[in-house]
Amino acid sequence: MLSVIVRSTLTKYRGLWVPSQFVVRAMSSSAAPTSPYTTLAISHPAESVTHVELHRPEKRNAMNKAFWSEMVDCFNEIAGDPDCRVVVVSGAGKIFTAGIDLMDMASDVLQPQGDDTARVSWNLRQKIAKYQETFSVIEKCPKPVVVAVHGACVGGGVDLITACDIRLCTQDAWFQVKEVDIGLAADVGTLQRLPKVIGSSSLVNDLALTARKMYADEAKSSGLVSRVFADKEAMMAGALEMADEIAARSPIAVQGTKINLIYARDHSVAEGLDYMATWNMSMLQTQDVMKSAQAAMEKKSPKTIAFSKL
Amino acid sequence: MLSVIVRSTLTKYRGLWVPSQFVVRAMSSSAAPTSPYTTLAISHPAESVTHVELHRPEKRNAMNKAFWSEMVDCFNEIAGDPDCRVVVVSGAGKIFTAGIDLMDMASDVLQPQGDDTARVSWNLRQKIAKYQETFSVIEKCPKPVVVAVHGACVGGGVDLITACDIRLCTQDAWFQVKEVDIGLAADVGTLQRLPKVIGSSSLVNDLALTARKMYADEAKSSGLVSRVFADKEAMMAGALEMADEIAARSPIAVQGTKINLIYARDHSVAEGLDYMATWNMSMLQTQDVMKSAQAAMEKKSPKTIAFSKL
Amino acid sequence: MLSVIVRSTLTKYRGLWVPSQFVVRAMSSSAAPTSPYTTLAISHPAESVTHVELHRPEKRNAMNKAFWSEMVDCFNEIAGDPDCRVVVVSGAGKIFTAGIDLMDMASDVLQPQGDDTARVSWNLRQKIAKYQETFSVIEKCPKPVVVAVHGACVGGGVDLITACDIRLCTQDAWFQVKEVDIGLAADVGTLQRLPKVIGSSSLVNDLALTARKMYADEAKSSGLVSRVFADKEAMMAGALEMADEIAARSPIAVQGTKINLIYARDHSVAEGLDYMATWNMSMLQTQDVMKSAQAAMEKKSPKTIAFSKL
Amino acid sequence: MLSVIVRSTLTKYRGLWVPSQFVVRAMSSSAAPTSPYTTLAISHPAESVTHVELHRPEKRNAMNKAFWSEMVDCFNEIAGDPDCRVVVVSGAGKIFTAGIDLMDMASDVLQPQGDDTARVSWNLRQKIAKYQETFSVIEKCPKPVVVAVHGACVGGGVDLITACDIRLCTQDAWFQVKEVDIGLAADVGTLQRLPKVIGSSSLVNDLALTARKMYADEAKSSGLVSRVFADKEAMMAGALEMADEIAARSPIAVQGTKINLIYARDHSVAEGLDYMATWNMSMLQTQDVMKSAQAAMEKKSPKTIAFSKL
Amino acid sequence: MLSVIVRSTLTKYRGLWVPSQFVVRAMSSSAAPTSPYTTLAISHPAESVTHVELHRPEKRNAMNKAFWSEMVDCFNEIAGDPDCRVVVVSGAGKIFTAGIDLMDMASDVLQPQGDDTARVSWNLRQKIAKYQETFSVIEKCPKPVVVAVHGACVGGGVDLITACDIRLCTQDAWFQVKEVDIGLAADVGTLQRLPKVIGSSSLVNDLALTARKMYADEAKSSGLVSRVFADKEAMMAGALEMADEIAARSPIAVQGTKINLIYARDHSVAEGLDYMATWNMSMLQTQDVMKSAQAAMEKKSPKTIAFSKL
Amino acid sequence: MLSVIVRSTLTKYRGLWVPSQFVVRAMSSSAAPTSPYTTLAISHPAESVTHVELHRPEKRNAMNKAFWSEMVDCFNEIAGDPDCRVVVVSGAGKIFTAGIDLMDMASDVLQPQGDDTARVSWNLRQKIAKYQETFSVIEKCPKPVVVAVHGACVGGGVDLITACDIRLCTQDAWFQVKEVDIGLAADVGTLQRLPKVIGSSSLVNDLALTARKMYADEAKSSGLVSRVFADKEAMMAGALEMADEIAARSPIAVQGTKINLIYARDHSVAEGLDYMATWNMSMLQTQDVMKSAQAAMEKKSPKTIAFSKL
Repeated sequence: MLSVIVRSTLTKYRGLWVPSQFVVRAMSSSAAPTSPYTTLAISHPAESVTHVELHRPEKRNAMNKAFWSEMVDCFNEIAGDPDCRVVVVSGAGKIFTAGIDLMDMASDVLQPQGDDTARVSWNLRQKIAKYQETFSVIEKCPKPVVVAVHGACVGGGVDLITACDIRLCTQDAWFQVKEVDIGLAADVGTLQRLPKVIGSSSLVNDLALTARKMYADEAKSSGLVSRVFADKEAMMAGALEMADEIAARSPIAVQGTKINLIYARDHSVAEGLDYMATWNMSMLQTQDVMKSAQAAMEKKSPKTIAFSKL
Repeated sequence: MLSVIVRSTLTKYRGLWVPSQFVVRAMSSSAAPTSPYTTLAISHPAESVTHVELHRPEKRNAMNKAFWSEMVDCFNEIAGDPDCRVVVVSGAGKIFTAGIDLMDMASDVLQPQGDDTARVSWNLRQKIAKYQETFSVIEKCPKPVVVAVHGACVGGGVDLITACDIRLCTQDAWFQVKEVDIGLAADVGTLQRLPKVIGSSSLVNDLALTARKMYADEAKSSGLVSRVFADKEAMMAGALEMADEIAARSPIAVQGTKINLIYARDHSVAEGLDYMATWNMSMLQTQDVMKSAQAAMEKKSPKTIAFSKL
Repeated sequence: MLSVIVRSTLTKYRGLWVPSQFVVRAMSSSAAPTSPYTTLAISHPAESVTHVELHRPEKRNAMNKAFWSEMVDCFNEIAGDPDCRVVVVSGAGKIFTAGIDLMDMASDVLQPQGDDTARVSWNLRQKIAKYQETFSVIEKCPKPVVVAVHGACVGGGVDLITACDIRLCTQDAWFQVKEVDIGLAADVGTLQRLPKVIGSSSLVNDLALTARKMYADEAKSSGLVSRVFADKEAMMAGALEMADEIAARSPIAVQGTKINLIYARDHSVAEGLDYMATWNMSMLQTQDVMKSAQAAMEKKSPKTIAFSKL
Repeated sequence: MLSVIVRSTLTKYRGLWVPSQFVVRAMSSSAAPTSPYTTLAISHPAESVTHVELHRPEKRNAMNKAFWSEMVDCFNEIAGDPDCRVVVVSGAGKIFTAGIDLMDMASDVLQPQGDDTARVSWNLRQKIAKYQETFSVIEKCPKPVVVAVHGACVGGGVDLITACDIRLCTQDAWFQVKEVDIGLAADVGTLQRLPKVIGSSSLVNDLALTARKMYADEAKSSGLVSRVFADKEAMMAGALEMADEIAARSPIAVQGTKINLIYARDHSVAEGLDYMATWNMSMLQTQDVMKSAQAAMEKKSPKTIAFSKL
Repeated sequence: MLSVIVRSTLTKYRGLWVPSQFVVRAMSSSAAPTSPYTTLAISHPAESVTHVELHRPEKRNAMNKAFWSEMVDCFNEIAGDPDCRVVVVSGAGKIFTAGIDLMDMASDVLQPQGDDTARVSWNLRQKIAKYQETFSVIEKCPKPVVVAVHGACVGGGVDLITACDIRLCTQDAWFQVKEVDIGLAADVGTLQRLPKVIGSSSLVNDLALTARKMYADEAKSSGLVSRVFADKEAMMAGALEMADEIAARSPIAVQGTKINLIYARDHSVAEGLDYMATWNMSMLQTQDVMKSAQAAMEKKSPKTIAFSKL
Repeated sequence: MLSVIVRSTLTKYRGLWVPSQFVVRAMSSSAAPTSPYTTLAISHPAESVTHVELHRPEKRNAMNKAFWSEMVDCFNEIAGDPDCRVVVVSGAGKIFTAGIDLMDMASDVLQPQGDDTARVSWNLRQKIAKYQETFSVIEKCPKPVVVAVHGACVGGGVDLITACDIRLCTQDAWFQVKEVDIGLAADVGTLQRLPKVIGSSSLVNDLALTARKMYADEAKSSGLVSRVFADKEAMMAGALEMADEIAARSPIAVQGTKINLIYARDHSVAEGLDYMATWNMSMLQTQDVMKSAQAAMEKKSPKTIAFSKL
């Protein structure tokens, strides 16, 4: 029933660039009761679009123990789901996320096991690697991930969003690399990805060393987010529209683009080109090229094309 | 005769920051009849400056079969031409380029030869590598390349301009990473170079995954272009002025700068420094340093110095 | 007069434990007579903050022979000084720096020794490597370095500031990659670091190839600096405030952040994550985490925490 | 009961360098009935030593579907088992392994699913990556893996042993990089690891391009194996003795050595040193150093030291 | 006489389709009069095998100006020749090669053009890069190259053979990294490839720093060559036999193997595996796998299979 | 006086391949009284040859605190000494070295300072980095270093010799990677360099994980050493002869060879070639090439040429 409503709603708002109440409602925090997760609500607001909602609104979506493993399960499943072509991530409730749930995690992080310093270190290293995986799965998932941030995005939240592909936010959003405030260097992705996500190293260092808040305008001008919306409703509509645009295109093209963009980030141009040529020597042999080219010549929208699942 | 006109024109407009009709005319699409190319018009609007114009205006400068090989010949010749110190690239007619000429290229790309999938793949990989070279020659050419974009820059056009060193555009310009619309991941440079050309990975992903248009203002604020001009005339004058500034400086300094900037992009800072020191241990032994230092102390413009050809 | 105005500003933004008058006085250009350097003035405007001032105001802080080695001594000492947690660099007098002092350096650079071209080259390479070290020490020093630029920052000045972590400037500041004007490719850091410091490669190339000036607004919008101040006074107060914020946080957290941010710049994300996990397996075992977490829960400022020296 | 026998047996043969029947029996192919695997037999021939036996002797230990996933489960479990400090891998029956079980795997590899060439390719890539993981788990497991080869080691067998740390073989052993004989380039590790495992690239190419057999003597002289034994019995005794030597040493030291040796293989010396220093800054704080140093000064064997589990 | 002896050898190891006498004759130093080269003799001693003979026997195959460009033309042609699946390189006359022909090359190398040291350096760098390409084409050619060395292999000869895939030699062969004897560091490949071709860095350094001769036995034990033959006749028969073995196998498998082995040499294991999976996702879709698997099950030789050309 | 004796002695033994008593005596452990070091004896057994002798024979040349810093001073001085073109390293007394002097170093390594685990780690990391430098200076010194090992080479000794360029040993020599025996992973170079020094990774792992001794024969066959001598006297004569051969050649050629060989070890072939071309664009402009070529044509020994100092 839900999907019917959303589908018709989508048809409407897409031509109009107008946020639809129904859309937003569909993407709201009323998680399906069958969700296998306690911290995430999964829904399918449109065809081929999966919505992952951080869903502990009463705890400001703080990242507790369950969250760290549920994200891995969730994105591994998404990676293998042929019915999903694009993912939208957002937060239920008043803010995107308050970051790590220190109360719940303290025993894990602050009371490490081990008979001596080396063994404690050994165990800590495994834990950190495991926590890093929580966000790296977003990057390893070949489907594009659009993240929509409202209110606060603190600490672990920044680790999360820098692993996503496209970042949107509301005018009231703010971001904070919080880790130095609790005595540690951010170790689950922010320090590694933030410098490759925005173009000003001075700003990156400023944020990471002072733990100051960055507001939406600076997030936009620095390139952290590519679009700012008036409020959450408008943002969710925009995110869904963007997801819909991506979902309408060839999954071979879209997912190959994500994989090669990430490869390019970590390699020289020459290496990226070599990998790309090796990638496309098979991927160009898809029917999708012919279907797409045909539609393009006939001035039809990509949304009219039926691509095989991937 | 042409050069005489242009020279005097240049002298005039340079001090005034005023676009000159003559300059623009000299750089217009009336290609010299002796040009060896069918898709490119080559001219020499000023001393040591080569102008390469995409020149199939009736086809919106779409990239046909001839284009892909002519670019390689053209830039290889430029690379070895001691009379050229800087290159300006622009498009004849109403837009910069509509990108790949699908009609002309279809047989090449869409009907690959080969007795089985592997052999088709093998042949496709060689084709892709060859097409990649069409734009990599711009990067391998040690002379700086300034590209001036007006109107549309679509698909292959983005691959082209990201391989140039400096990007300018008009207020009416727009850019589109078009490839996902025809069912493929961009494979001749955009995915490899665009993330290293602008500082917002969210924007790069947005553009590459949705194939949306980006207009001049966003191109400027994101850093894709470094200057926006009111119209093509103003832009060409500005491009020529910039080319002239570069051409007036020591070719040893200028070309060594380009080579080391590209090296730095693909290496760690430590590796870049080591290469730079090894480069300059000989390059510092040029007369150009003494000549330049002398002129600087005498408050003379670099344009008054006669540097040996390189 | 200066000190009075700034003093009140300082009094506002900081808590109780800061000696304000002395701070401002200490940060002025009247170097302490006991400074071991002839080109640098060292002071300690606040607890755990070291101020390094380029101090040849009568020569516009031009970089003479003494400067190149004093910087190395200075930052090596700072790196090992447990009483320093953050560094502020600025220039005495009217401008930040005019760059290399050609008169003083000419004999070193322009008259290299050696019995033949190869031996001259060999000696030049050693010199360049030595000069590169002058700025690389800033990067190797684990304490964050905030640089505050007013007036002009020319040539070697750009090499210097791109090796710092956070860049601030005044509204009247301008920056110039000057090297092509004296016939050489910039070889002590600018070409290697500038492309990784700002996000627009078109702008980097424009600056390095034309030697044009870039003013404060473009420096801000391009991300070269992260904050612009009305005048030097305001900037120095802001730099000190920022330094104070950083100094108040766990040195384990802050210095680990700097080290891992620089590591991330030069490595793939996967490599950066691996290094980070290996780093933090011991660093998380600091008391600072507990102290900081405790303070955070009690809503106390980091400035109330007494961290052990590092 | 088994362990008691083995322990006493071990005590005997260790001083004598004589293969013990009992030892060999303990390590023979009579897999414990409780083994969770159908293609692997797991036993514990000595304290802290795990023996993984390829165990489909009737099929010459050919690698069927079950094998590819059981290896992953097996080594993931070993990686996390504090009672295991070193692993010995060998083959049950007449030969080490005949390589991939083409009959069982054909449907998986030769009849890939997918609606077009690109989708078939996509699915194949995932399969290959999964098969690669089957051997990469050996490398990711921090416990050293000693592999003991008798009789034939063909195709996938070479992929397997090149992922192990130490290679031993019998005089009658031979090795064959078989893949070109079935029309494909070896894609689960041989081409990547063999060149880094032996020092002669001419030999590597010879083996991989002609699919010729290499016998024990050449395997020894080329460095593929580090020791050759007269027969399987002697080899198993030797392997166990070696495993015992390794198991007797500090697991902090041993596993840190493996991890850093693999890191060094894939990085420059400078990078390896940096990683090593970052590793050991915590690992040197183990009690094991003190315990070991004490024992060394007292001329006691490492086997007399009780190290905490890791 | 020669042909008779070799013929019988050949008759043994090959099947029915090989013209033996002609083979040996074809491989002798009497170059076909139609050869387009003055320093190389090209022949086709067997199906799909190309023989490239260094052919200036009266000058001990010294590398003159023509040689450096002819090699590039020759291997570029071979790379694109579907009738060639493997290459054998050897030298006509008494020795393999005396290395660079100093007399002929002196003007090129020792009298470089340029108005100052920097310009001379610039021109020299281009020359060196061009000379490097002479041997890099061997590596870029996807067909395996077997090189057979008799007598002396000096200077440039070592650069040449280290770029080949498989090295064979006669008992009377010797090798000499000669460059330090003429005052320069070897710059066309030896210093880059020799350390990756043999496993003893002490030996590599010894050879490169003392310019001493290394004889066949040490060449074999160090792994420089993988097989030593009694004399040239036996070696050429062995080389041809090996070439024949390689040519009989799937060109998709063989050339994919070469490309991935070279990739592996220059990358980490993880990167090599990723590239390999991306390569084989299409290459496994060749008919050659089915044909080869079928033949293998029927116990037929690969030589009985007709593979499509590549 | 010493040098006179040695010179004439050298002239004699060089033709004869006979160890000379005088030579050995000159290179013996009777250090010049003016040596600035307490653990190293420095002498000049021949022109342009520096002999560095580990010289605590009564302590089996164990590496005490003084040693770790004296090595750095010593090799930094050698690097800058124009009268030194090659270095020979050996050990005084009965063995080469027993490795680290645990008694003397214990306080430094085993009782690290720091207020908490993180601070102890921080200090340990700095210490390790400093100790690594003790052997990295050998590699950074552009003059080739020949190391001659007799008797035992244990622990730190292996770290030392793997940083040298050429390794020689006596028939009675043995090598032991000792670190796992004292509870730690070798962290000052062995794990990073040994795998790049010998070609068998199985052997490297065997040695590093079991701490077993390797004797001269295996050291030779594995390529760790390139020559084995009957006794120390013969070895020292051989080392000196080799040093003399190297010293007789162009220092431009020799030192450029060392630098580029080390560069090649840590880079891809393509990167190595690029660096080499950039290196030699100036280094080929040495008189040494002409002098050497002239001598070569006149069949004169390099020893007859007078090269300028470097």
